[in-house]
Amino acid sequence: MGSSTTPPSGFRDFLPEACAARAKVIETISGVYRSFGFQPIDTSAVEDLPVLLGKGGGENEKLIFKILKRGEKLERTEPGSELADLGLRFDLTLPLARFYSRYCGQLPNPFKAYHIGPVWRAERAQKGRYREFYQCDADIIGSESMLCEVEVISALDAAFRAFKIEPIIWLSDRSLLFSLLDQAGVPADKRGEACLLLDKLDKVDRQTLLGELETAVGAQCAKWLQSHILGGKVDRDRLDAAAPEAMGRLNQIMDILKNSPVQGRLELRPSLVRGFDYYTGPVFEFRHPRLSGAIGGGGRYDRLTEQFSGKGTPACGASIGFERLMLILEESGSVAKADELRACVSVFSPELLGHSIKTAAQLRAAGWNVDLYTGTGKLKAQFKYADTRRAKLAIIIGPEEAAAGKIKVKDLSTGQETLTTTENLEKPGS
Amino acid sequence: MGSSTTPPSGFRDFLPEACAARAKVIETISGVYRSFGFQPIDTSAVEDLPVLLGKGGGENEKLIFKILKRGEKLERTEPGSELADLGLRFDLTLPLARFYSRYCGQLPNPFKAYHIGPVWRAERAQKGRYREFYQCDADIIGSESMLCEVEVISALDAAFRAFKIEPIIWLSDRSLLFSLLDQAGVPADKRGEACLLLDKLDKVDRQTLLGELETAVGAQCAKWLQSHILGGKVDRDRLDAAAPEAMGRLNQIMDILKNSPVQGRLELRPSLVRGFDYYTGPVFEFRHPRLSGAIGGGGRYDRLTEQFSGKGTPACGASIGFERLMLILEESGSVAKADELRACVSVFSPELLGHSIKTAAQLRAAGWNVDLYTGTGKLKAQFKYADTRRAKLAIIIGPEEAAAGKIKVKDLSTGQETLTTTENLEKPGS
Repeated sequence: MGSSTTPPSGFRDFLPEACAARAKVIETISGVYRSFGFQPIDTSAVEDLPVLLGKGGGENEKLIFKILKRGEKLERTEPGSELADLGLRFDLTLPLARFYSRYCGQLPNPFKAYHIGPVWRAERAQKGRYREFYQCDADIIGSESMLCEVEVISALDAAFRAFKIEPIIWLSDRSLLFSLLDQAGVPADKRGEACLLLDKLDKVDRQTLLGELETAVGAQCAKWLQSHILGGKVDRDRLDAAAPEAMGRLNQIMDILKNSPVQGRLELRPSLVRGFDYYTGPVFEFRHPRLSGAIGGGGRYDRLTEQFSGKGTPACGASIGFERLMLILEESGSVAKADELRACVSVFSPELLGHSIKTAAQLRAAGWNVDLYTGTGKLKAQFKYADTRRAKLAIIIGPEEAAAGKIKVKDLSTGQETLTTTENLEKPGS
Repeated sequence: MGSSTTPPSGFRDFLPEACAARAKVIETISGVYRSFGFQPIDTSAVEDLPVLLGKGGGENEKLIFKILKRGEKLERTEPGSELADLGLRFDLTLPLARFYSRYCGQLPNPFKAYHIGPVWRAERAQKGRYREFYQCDADIIGSESMLCEVEVISALDAAFRAFKIEPIIWLSDRSLLFSLLDQAGVPADKRGEACLLLDKLDKVDRQTLLGELETAVGAQCAKWLQSHILGGKVDRDRLDAAAPEAMGRLNQIMDILKNSPVQGRLELRPSLVRGFDYYTGPVFEFRHPRLSGAIGGGGRYDRLTEQFSGKGTPACGASIGFERLMLILEESGSVAKADELRACVSVFSPELLGHSIKTAAQLRAAGWNVDLYTGTGKLKAQFKYADTRRAKLAIIIGPEEAAAGKIKVKDLSTGQETLTTTENLEKPGS
């Protein structure tokens, strides 16, 4: 038996149409990010393992695809000690923190960066969740101003709107939820668990999880949290009193965004948690109006560079869930089409090949996407090929056409045939 | 001490300018490939290890970054057996063979594919040689016609010409060199070694290596090879007699390309070897007229799908050495510039922020790339920032401008200041 032709579990291949669609979506997002003054960066796919593991390690370690040591280094590794020295990046934020710590002297301050590329996570693959997927990050590093949040939120929102998606934007702050948990009387050691449950509760069917919340923090606390955090109407005064600093930040963001295209789609949502530990202030999430799950999200992370430079740097950034976005675009049939193939030039016979080559070259030079048939089939097979390629035109140069210095052009949608010259055909608008 | 901020040895980060330049070059190459009717594909960065190792394994095994097994799978691994189950792809040709074997039923026949992406090789890093680098492949699968070679060579050549590079193209055939070695009396078991030496001899200073060739095949053989293979003028008749089939293929390719833009830059070069074992017919290499080393190359590989489907498929493809191309473009100063930042909008005071935000939003909506200052510095710092960003214009809205419904626009190259409105500024041609 031969090797398997399927990629490893959780990994994917992309056929031409999907590949072209992904490239177009990336192009659009890049263009929007650039229009907001973000600059592109790229980092290595592979990082030193200690960089990926950070101080704590623990939580991320399971996510990491680790790369085996090589050669002598592997041979010298003692049993029981780490067999890997490198790993694949699992997000684009940690690499950005390393990048910024390395280059900050050469970068504008603040630095507005965007980074679009694949990341890898050793999670169990399931429908819609892959082990290799793209992220599209936009970050501003070096400023404490809430204008960073405003610009990042606006840029992601503009990117979604470029695909006719008007997301709902949930906004909160890490310390807001912590303050509310304190008010509710949740003991400090139950904070993490309660956060996770509240975050889930806000997103899925509540009944099953409410029991879990009661078990975790007690019935009274759970009731308080349910009415004050998960309740329909947010009580601004209570929130202002509970966490004045956090609410100060959030009010600033909401004030500035009041007169922007985001208006009417921004919601204060105290239960919003976001997964990563590194957030230190406002967090936000982009939700599709008709789907569960986030299509983007981010927040402020003022301490991520500590791992590298010993000191924190104010920073705020967000990421578009590229694979979810593609899914939405595919399901709504609004995936960008690949560049059209204008013509397939067929080859009548080896003797007349020169004519076909000349015509293809001339049309390509005029900016057309043109395929020249490279197979060994007869004309019938060549027409079938042109159909498969979804070419607009098929071009045939048989003995009569060659003798008359003409080409025969067949419109593959109408079937209409025209006798013309390459010069006439390549004219704009033909 | 903090984590290191440098990427692992042989891996690189890209600052905004370099990142933008690379994206532009990739865009250009993609455009040229598409104009020749090639369709984009993508495959996973990670492959099952047996796929990468193939039948032989040996030669490639050292190149592969292997990914450590995870969780229980690692725990169950017995001492002495393979610790890895996955690996990073080391080229784009093997993944293409897997891809084609999996999807050929859904693909046009022949299938013209292009694939641009990173590959990883666990080689010792050195100047200009990286462990993570891009390849830009164009392949035609499913046809024995030498027109495939013609299209692939023409497409790569057109891509180089898009950067004003007119490469010399060396052409040969695997079996041509083998036949000549037979004629010279090189014993079969010395073939591989002789091939490698001849290939090197044709590319570097000969004196040191000639001795090695003598040691390998004997003085008489070495002399014969030197005069018949490495000699200045190629003796076509001798080649035709030595390897009629191979020369039949090569003559066909050269005939067709005689009247193409490649004309005058195509050279028959019997000593050309190309590294990979999988080539089965014509091979070719693109050489920069003023530099040593190839900037691209490829050939026919009719048996690569055997590993997957059990049967071979005629195929021909080539790859642009993207990193070398970037090096050439950088050295000649012809690297594409990043998208220009048209304006930096400064923020005069928190009270006037709304005016700045409105102006930025309006210009962005008009298609401009516009940065809004997100830092906390005073106007002086904001001008410095606009300079660092190489913006064309700086826009200031102070109390007087705001009161008058105007904006102040400073041309950062001339220093000239104008009082205008956003509406006037965004007009095309302003």
